[in-house]
Amino acid sequence: MKLDPTKMKDWEIAAECEKRMKTVYQLGEELGLTKEELLPYGHYVAKIDYRKVLERLKDRPNGKYIDVTAITPTPLGEGKSTTAIGLIQGMGKRGKKVIGALRQPSGGPTFNIKGSAAGGGLAQIIPLDKFSLGLTGDINAVMNAHNLAMVALTARMQHEANYDDEFLAKRGLKRLNIDPKRVEMGWVIDYCAQALRHIVIGLGGKRDGYPMESKFWIAVASEVMAILAVAKDLKDLRERIGRIVVAFDKFGNPITTEDLEVAGAMTAWLVEAINPNMIQTLEGQPVLIHAGPFANIAIGQSSIIADYVGLKLADYLVTESGFAADIGFEKFWNIKCRLSGLTPDCAVVVATIRALKCHGGAPIPPPGKPIPKEYYEENLEWVEKGCENLMHCVNIVKKSGTTPVVCLNAFHTDTKNEIELVRRICEEHGVRVAVSEHWLKGGEGALELADAVVEACEEKSEFRFLYDLDEPIKDRIEKIAREVYGADGVVYLPAAEEKIRYLESDPELRKMPICMVKTHLSLSDDPTKKGVPKGWNLRVRDVLIYRGSGFIVPVAGDISLMPGTGSDPAYRRIDVDVETGKVKGLF
Amino acid sequence: MKLDPTKMKDWEIAAECEKRMKTVYQLGEELGLTKEELLPYGHYVAKIDYRKVLERLKDRPNGKYIDVTAITPTPLGEGKSTTAIGLIQGMGKRGKKVIGALRQPSGGPTFNIKGSAAGGGLAQIIPLDKFSLGLTGDINAVMNAHNLAMVALTARMQHEANYDDEFLAKRGLKRLNIDPKRVEMGWVIDYCAQALRHIVIGLGGKRDGYPMESKFWIAVASEVMAILAVAKDLKDLRERIGRIVVAFDKFGNPITTEDLEVAGAMTAWLVEAINPNMIQTLEGQPVLIHAGPFANIAIGQSSIIADYVGLKLADYLVTESGFAADIGFEKFWNIKCRLSGLTPDCAVVVATIRALKCHGGAPIPPPGKPIPKEYYEENLEWVEKGCENLMHCVNIVKKSGTTPVVCLNAFHTDTKNEIELVRRICEEHGVRVAVSEHWLKGGEGALELADAVVEACEEKSEFRFLYDLDEPIKDRIEKIAREVYGADGVVYLPAAEEKIRYLESDPELRKMPICMVKTHLSLSDDPTKKGVPKGWNLRVRDVLIYRGSGFIVPVAGDISLMPGTGSDPAYRRIDVDVETGKVKGLF
Repeated sequence: MKLDPTKMKDWEIAAECEKRMKTVYQLGEELGLTKEELLPYGHYVAKIDYRKVLERLKDRPNGKYIDVTAITPTPLGEGKSTTAIGLIQGMGKRGKKVIGALRQPSGGPTFNIKGSAAGGGLAQIIPLDKFSLGLTGDINAVMNAHNLAMVALTARMQHEANYDDEFLAKRGLKRLNIDPKRVEMGWVIDYCAQALRHIVIGLGGKRDGYPMESKFWIAVASEVMAILAVAKDLKDLRERIGRIVVAFDKFGNPITTEDLEVAGAMTAWLVEAINPNMIQTLEGQPVLIHAGPFANIAIGQSSIIADYVGLKLADYLVTESGFAADIGFEKFWNIKCRLSGLTPDCAVVVATIRALKCHGGAPIPPPGKPIPKEYYEENLEWVEKGCENLMHCVNIVKKSGTTPVVCLNAFHTDTKNEIELVRRICEEHGVRVAVSEHWLKGGEGALELADAVVEACEEKSEFRFLYDLDEPIKDRIEKIAREVYGADGVVYLPAAEEKIRYLESDPELRKMPICMVKTHLSLSDDPTKKGVPKGWNLRVRDVLIYRGSGFIVPVAGDISLMPGTGSDPAYRRIDVDVETGKVKGLF
Repeated sequence: MKLDPTKMKDWEIAAECEKRMKTVYQLGEELGLTKEELLPYGHYVAKIDYRKVLERLKDRPNGKYIDVTAITPTPLGEGKSTTAIGLIQGMGKRGKKVIGALRQPSGGPTFNIKGSAAGGGLAQIIPLDKFSLGLTGDINAVMNAHNLAMVALTARMQHEANYDDEFLAKRGLKRLNIDPKRVEMGWVIDYCAQALRHIVIGLGGKRDGYPMESKFWIAVASEVMAILAVAKDLKDLRERIGRIVVAFDKFGNPITTEDLEVAGAMTAWLVEAINPNMIQTLEGQPVLIHAGPFANIAIGQSSIIADYVGLKLADYLVTESGFAADIGFEKFWNIKCRLSGLTPDCAVVVATIRALKCHGGAPIPPPGKPIPKEYYEENLEWVEKGCENLMHCVNIVKKSGTTPVVCLNAFHTDTKNEIELVRRICEEHGVRVAVSEHWLKGGEGALELADAVVEACEEKSEFRFLYDLDEPIKDRIEKIAREVYGADGVVYLPAAEEKIRYLESDPELRKMPICMVKTHLSLSDDPTKKGVPKGWNLRVRDVLIYRGSGFIVPVAGDISLMPGTGSDPAYRRIDVDVETGKVKGLF
């Protein structure tokens, strides 16, 4: 059967390829996994025992490490995941031993309007239904671990309100004096459930909890998820879980999950979740799916453990950093690589003619509405002007000492002249460039990209961090603002100043890496400013402190930790074929 | 290593046996499962593709069907699960091809004070950590399916409040006019989270949901879980999911998940959950673990699908009905067997000397406190008097036409005289009786029980229902009250009268089976009345209607659908060995 993405829905293509996909036993054999290392979850999904693999292959040199990032996107996104998958397929077509490492999608977007981020067209991950519907349950495990802390917190507040010190002492409990106005943590659920954003809990009698304001976040915004992504092993995970600050006491001291005696039980939920999951591309290359933390308060990338495993099992590992190069690659570079000790060999910067036009002056395409007609007409001036943003993003990659490759993710509406213009500009700047048609043609369409990446990986790279952890926090924020975003400087609001003073006074906290919250729709902190904005200062309104994941989080943009479900959500079209058990309507 | 349950904790015994447990591939081979039918989840847990098994073995005669029930228990429980597991092990020791079918435990009790219900001593299910921590994620799937309905409900209420009919029509939506005061459904979480019992949601601005009172239940109390337990196949499941009533509109009409266009997506979460899970006893017999619905608003039993599968795969299937014979066996008999079309060959009635003494006059043992000293002293008078409750429960079983076997679950504190007295009374009543020491000795200690059950299964049984679905609802409730509980009659409060009138006026609803809510701590509706209470009427306060699971639920007792976490919960003692990944401290 001919697979034509211009005529078929993504899930129809996936269903067709699933008929002849490899079993995980085949994938495991191709990767040389032992029977003990491969933990099947059904015949087409497996977990990999990371500990056993890393122990067995500790002396094998790592494969090449490739990150896929992008220019500043339009609100529609520029196909970063699709390109990462296309690249894996292209390298596979060239006979390279390649593996992917990507994020697990959240149930929120899957059932709302975004879909499940499994790529698209002829560059997808399968089995699509398992990928979209929780895979082996890691997000549920994160959710259960997180909510157990809230059960412990609220039950403890209730018991301290109802019982005297003597009663508590009989159970080995010392009064924690939690301040109900300074409970930092909320509950999590893996949906866009705006009705749970602002709630009041603990109503009813004295045995019905402690009355207070509370909140729900989407599960992937949980600090537990942030930790799953950066933990190096189970020991590291256990320690980070125990450092999560759930609240402050009435004297301003932090209360951690360890104080609530719940950190061990939380970790018990994660013993299986720490092992990466393996599925495959439409063309049969293995892809590790592991962790899916938010891209603002966390790194927005798949796990360090998946990268460790993949780099031992294959010659090339392709991963992706969420958002654009300024936010996503910067965190990959200065947080993920710092914590993992790994250094990338190449970074692919994905661009589209659509986004370049947008940066060059075309009207911003609104999500959920028809794309303005300007995008269907050739406009070389806009494309050329838009390449300033592309080159800025390429330079971010270069600052890390990593070799960049520009990938023009081609649409069938792009004109030959537009494509050639981008090619020429890249060549003038001495940057490798490849035009890729993976969406339309799969791996076959990504051969030029695959070749460019293989070549780039052979270049000697001199990876270096943007800042040292010893540098003052403000200096580090300023480096990111100036050298990565192109700002003139940084302005701090009083709340941020105060938090930074507090952090600097703590010898441990002051050394945590910076995890910036900023819009990904502009290099600046104003999402409407396109291209390369000049003459602006980054406004840091607040600084959040995540002790468990270990991040200092300056807030220079809006964070919604609980998105909303729209009026025409995806669940309306999802159903099950009751004869075959196949899920229909996912995208 | 000698395993001594008087000296070792349950989880230590489990850990020791896990070192030499069978892989699921071995278990699958012993059961003759094909590679396509056995879906491994790691090496020691599998799902079984129920559809493929039932199709392949449709012409094989079913094995013998054995239900384990109990006399009215003390608040401490009388070891029904442990006896079921012991019986499986005992039959295995005798060389019988036996399989178990048991409920999955909820995370609420596991992390609170009850522990995980994996049996105890030398009669347990392993791997204990996977059994206790979500197994293959079915409860999470139920939770996600359930909460998706609430996301759809609350988002819809918000959008109907914010948008006019024209806007809604553009998205193909017709105003549902949901009455915020008649929202029946709450959210679920699989913990004892009393702080979420009574909450207010939708606070904030107009995009933050719809402000109203709401609630959380423990996930296993979800109607979705009730449905998973009674569905005969995926088609049946899909239809039942679509019939769940989430709320009523302002004119009193029910609003279902189908009206919210979310029933298909809910079912998508359950495509894997519908397949039973397989693990094993300490002695290597296979046990299916599937569904874990509440014993009051649902059947409190593992799934019909697991029974279908187990009866095809083995010569004997041992299952358990939650609570005592009056509530648990009655629902097994008149709901589960009616819906499944299966008929039991034998029912084991578990008794302990402790419970018999309690029914005979000893002080009721309070949970969480030391057992009164009277229980450690021989008292034949109490035991003899207590046997009235035992014989009443045996008679309940006999009324169904099923052959009973009394199992005295022996404790080392029981005296020889006490045991012999029970044996004699049973023999005088012509009932098979076996004394079992499975807790202390495993299958070896349950051989007498196994032999009695095998013998009982050879008797011709004449299974018959207590009532027909055509009979008026009140007649049916009265039959249960008089013939099963031993009441003089039934008294209905006005709310119940009104609901019954409504039900009788609906030709479909009136034919749903009765699923009674009543205490399991007494044959009557007063938990303090022990033995066989006389001269009382059952008070039915209300009648709940569950259209999805298909139950008429008369309420003659308290229902807490969200238990509370105590001041010394189990999570305090649970942790992970970070070197091996083993979970410690579960029980």
